[in-house]
Amino acid sequence: MKVSRIEHLRVAVQKIEDALPFFQDVLGLEVYKTEVVEDQKVKTAFLKVGEVKIELLEPTSPDSTVQKFLDKGGRGVHHVAFKVEDGVTEALAVCDAKGVRLIDKAIRQGADGLHIAFLHPKSTCGILTELCEE
Amino acid sequence: MKVSRIEHLRVAVQKIEDALPFFQDVLGLEVYKTEVVEDQKVKTAFLKVGEVKIELLEPTSPDSTVQKFLDKGGRGVHHVAFKVEDGVTEALAVCDAKGVRLIDKAIRQGADGLHIAFLHPKSTCGILTELCEE
Repeated sequence: MKVSRIEHLRVAVQKIEDALPFFQDVLGLEVYKTEVVEDQKVKTAFLKVGEVKIELLEPTSPDSTVQKFLDKGGRGVHHVAFKVEDGVTEALAVCDAKGVRLIDKAIRQGADGLHIAFLHPKSTCGILTELCEE
Repeated sequence: MKVSRIEHLRVAVQKIEDALPFFQDVLGLEVYKTEVVEDQKVKTAFLKVGEVKIELLEPTSPDSTVQKFLDKGGRGVHHVAFKVEDGVTEALAVCDAKGVRLIDKAIRQGADGLHIAFLHPKSTCGILTELCEE
């Protein structure tokens, strides 16, 4: 697997508008896009710092996995996404061969036009890990 | 405040050697340095992906704050460090003026030769946030 960079960090928040004062007014970052991802039941706001996107994630339904993460006391970085150069399908095969537990056994559509797959935090030092390609 | 990039992500692990198979053998990243930070009671291993360092953090004492984080069930990304271009001291003044709760009221020495200060997660959407300069 060839990982070139961190593509994004996703940050779970109850309300995007409550999070923006810190990211915009304090850190000085700008929201360049917002998006609703219906199948994940979330609204996202995208900011960029250097080569990394920060995606603020707000649940749009009580049964969103992000709402469940927040309800369990989860805060801050929800997951880290790595951009893989040689494709997510091949990367998943590598992970599977090395005994990494997969959440997604096949590639699927993510936010921001990415193709994605998740690895299970049990196999990734507790970091919910996304592999992605454009 | 001018934030140019994410300088590093710190990942809390119980044992660095148990974490390396994922980061090295699966993601293909390389450890380029290890360091013991006595005053934080941690051992760190540094890897780099794109412009961002990933620092694996292993507690060296039961009363290390990292051990406490792990004991409380904390996993994964322990904190996010942003590189500030206009200096941490000035950034702290900006944060203070904007009502952000500070953990460090003044700059201090961190790992890897950085000057650092932490902001409280209560003011930063739950993300333990470090500001740093070289």
